[in-house]
Amino acid sequence: MTDLRAVLASALADPGRVTDGDSERDLHASDLTFHRPQRPDAVVYPLSTAEVARVLEIADARGIPVTPFGAGSSLEGHVIPTLGGISLDLTRMNRILELDAAGLSAVVQAGVLRSALDAAAGAHGLMFPVDPGADATIGGMAATNAAGTTTIRYGKTRASVLALEAVLPGGRVIRTGTRAPKSSAGYDLTGLLVGSEGTLAVITEVTVRLHGIPEHAVALRVAFPDVGAACRTAAALVAAGSGVTRLELVDAWTVAALNAHLGSRYPEVPCLFVEAAGTRTAVEGDLELVAAVAAAEGAVEIVHERDAGARARLWEARHAVAYAVSATAPGKGHRTTDVCVPVPELPAAVAVARATLDRLDLQGGILGHAGDGNLHVSVMVDPDDAAEVARSDELVGLLVEDALARGGTCTGEHGIGAGKIAWLEREHPDLLPLYRGIKALFDPHGIMNPGKVLRAAGDGR
Amino acid sequence: MTDLRAVLASALADPGRVTDGDSERDLHASDLTFHRPQRPDAVVYPLSTAEVARVLEIADARGIPVTPFGAGSSLEGHVIPTLGGISLDLTRMNRILELDAAGLSAVVQAGVLRSALDAAAGAHGLMFPVDPGADATIGGMAATNAAGTTTIRYGKTRASVLALEAVLPGGRVIRTGTRAPKSSAGYDLTGLLVGSEGTLAVITEVTVRLHGIPEHAVALRVAFPDVGAACRTAAALVAAGSGVTRLELVDAWTVAALNAHLGSRYPEVPCLFVEAAGTRTAVEGDLELVAAVAAAEGAVEIVHERDAGARARLWEARHAVAYAVSATAPGKGHRTTDVCVPVPELPAAVAVARATLDRLDLQGGILGHAGDGNLHVSVMVDPDDAAEVARSDELVGLLVEDALARGGTCTGEHGIGAGKIAWLEREHPDLLPLYRGIKALFDPHGIMNPGKVLRAAGDGR
Repeated sequence: MTDLRAVLASALADPGRVTDGDSERDLHASDLTFHRPQRPDAVVYPLSTAEVARVLEIADARGIPVTPFGAGSSLEGHVIPTLGGISLDLTRMNRILELDAAGLSAVVQAGVLRSALDAAAGAHGLMFPVDPGADATIGGMAATNAAGTTTIRYGKTRASVLALEAVLPGGRVIRTGTRAPKSSAGYDLTGLLVGSEGTLAVITEVTVRLHGIPEHAVALRVAFPDVGAACRTAAALVAAGSGVTRLELVDAWTVAALNAHLGSRYPEVPCLFVEAAGTRTAVEGDLELVAAVAAAEGAVEIVHERDAGARARLWEARHAVAYAVSATAPGKGHRTTDVCVPVPELPAAVAVARATLDRLDLQGGILGHAGDGNLHVSVMVDPDDAAEVARSDELVGLLVEDALARGGTCTGEHGIGAGKIAWLEREHPDLLPLYRGIKALFDPHGIMNPGKVLRAAGDGR
Repeated sequence: MTDLRAVLASALADPGRVTDGDSERDLHASDLTFHRPQRPDAVVYPLSTAEVARVLEIADARGIPVTPFGAGSSLEGHVIPTLGGISLDLTRMNRILELDAAGLSAVVQAGVLRSALDAAAGAHGLMFPVDPGADATIGGMAATNAAGTTTIRYGKTRASVLALEAVLPGGRVIRTGTRAPKSSAGYDLTGLLVGSEGTLAVITEVTVRLHGIPEHAVALRVAFPDVGAACRTAAALVAAGSGVTRLELVDAWTVAALNAHLGSRYPEVPCLFVEAAGTRTAVEGDLELVAAVAAAEGAVEIVHERDAGARARLWEARHAVAYAVSATAPGKGHRTTDVCVPVPELPAAVAVARATLDRLDLQGGILGHAGDGNLHVSVMVDPDDAAEVARSDELVGLLVEDALARGGTCTGEHGIGAGKIAWLEREHPDLLPLYRGIKALFDPHGIMNPGKVLRAAGDGR
């Protein structure tokens, strides 16, 4: 691949930003999960949109696969260069280009971390509200339409993206959207590129919507006698139009894993982690509502975390779940699957998930963005144990079929990546010709992240 | 066109639902505005998705244009069959197929009026929140991504659409999305079809998100010494993250037109019409915030409308603006143009709009969804007075150029239709090849609403 490296090096101002060394290739071979690593042939670190364009011109002319790489925190193999080629690491394009505090927007390069954007916004009393847990890049979050604990209030990443700059295969640069809060000008290409998982174009700049930091916030940990009661409480709070910002289900197995990992002493029963935020009066109103609904569902404990430190610890615990689950089976790989159902279906979907884990003899936790009907099941899998992988495949299949039967979807937020292609085909067989047509329109030579969302050409699986 | 009528009649269960009579064709020749009428060759009233599919199969095979028609309340000529052909009137597909109160969703046929959906939802304490003013059909609102007074809180129609059934040219039926509150399964075809203005497919069913009716709501009319103060108040309320549901700017000229039309006695100065809704405590908090911000901007009067009747009258007055403006020049046509800018740019954009109206000797009102930076300028135009039409064209052009210079867009919510094609080309020249590619993917023979969003084939304007 010396030839490829040399050609790519000629496209960048500094040839040192192209490498085919083993360690760099290893670092760009996997995501955080059990998905099998695959090394790229070369790793490229562009500093500018112009450099991305030159790389895509070269790659398109030669038919070399290009897989964009941000923080590497996706969960369905999105960043694994399945067919080799170039891993396009955008993390050095990490400048906040503009922060318009009065206009509640910011323009950032794709590689800016959400923590960096949030810190810059915070200096103006503002925040970027989408919280997928991981400290992802804004470009990666746009590419995967990331969501998470605050989606119930602020929507997924798509709701926070006003405009994009992206580079098409071949190197043409396009700009979608504007800085206005809304637009009806033309087909919604911003929305189409958001969530396209790097298969249509490389997102190089993102114009995001910012929000004021609420003046007041309180977190609650509410313990329930069973997961059904926790789910019903969440459903009732959504139906009541409460302004809560987070409504997180954590089941007893997961609480136990957290206690073991963090040394905490949360009661090992199903919990909702809730946050209310807004004006002081609005928060107090929401807290009363949460207390009333939870009591009606037989909540056994309600703990308020009113100071910022205690609140932060509760959300750090929630975000530590992935590590806590991993710590239950050192050496194995983490497989988190993600389905989404109508909110009233969540209690039954959770019950099916627990029964299926038990039947398949898999150890795992169930958590959910309960206000969104979004359910995650986390298990540990040894990628070299074919039987265990097969049982985890069976788990995923049964969860997806159950979600579809309930009117839901095979993924609420983790996306398709390499891991859910067959399930996308199962869910939307009638849409596959349109998906393929859109892919061919943007990427006629099929160089963009091949083998993600859609099967790669020639992959007859 | 007897042949066309006979062929279409064979596609429907009742041949009486195809007509080429003059009166029906006249009723489907125009929208509510100054845009020049054009009659279809035939009007078809399908009752089912299967009938729509048969019509699209016939039309596609013969290259006959198809223009979907709902309430006919769009403002940029969307429903005018520019090249003749079939006006596909979906208003008889007006059944609410399912209302899942616990799941906060409903499945409706495209011709259901938003008032009908809202009434059905209201029986369960729920509402469909998007309010464009007109009593549009849900299919039309989805096709145009309608927005309006409540967008600041609930988003545009796209945010309320979970899933679609649509018929492609040729007659193939597709289903996008699911009933789950969120999904990351595949490219966002739901979002792409929403706002595609009938140029890609015919939307036949819409699965919408419903919301709880807030327990308490208060409307405010706040009078200001000048429009700048009104706009700055709106901007400050948005920045503060207030939970207000409506933030409407009405300028002095428009208040005067309302008074003349309704016999009301509102002070003829720039006003914000505001609504706060939520729990009682949240509303009181927001009202305090509005009062404080407005006072700091020199508000001269704040009137609270606390009972439901008075609140309704205030919003009826807001929605009567189009009629009030029309009443200022009987016999002329109404031209409302719509641009959107970053919220802090709104005061200057409004000032430019007023100065441009004056300079061009046009009588008109300025109103805006001030919380969204969305500005409408309404003027009366005699379609047969070429000079007046030219001056209104000049007005639109200057407003769009000004909005683009401020980082905004040529349309915040009214869409492109036939009226803004040149401005879409001005705003997004780099995206035209992708727009055309998407059009060709869905509609290879160009039968769907030709001459809207994109120029019709062979139109070399």
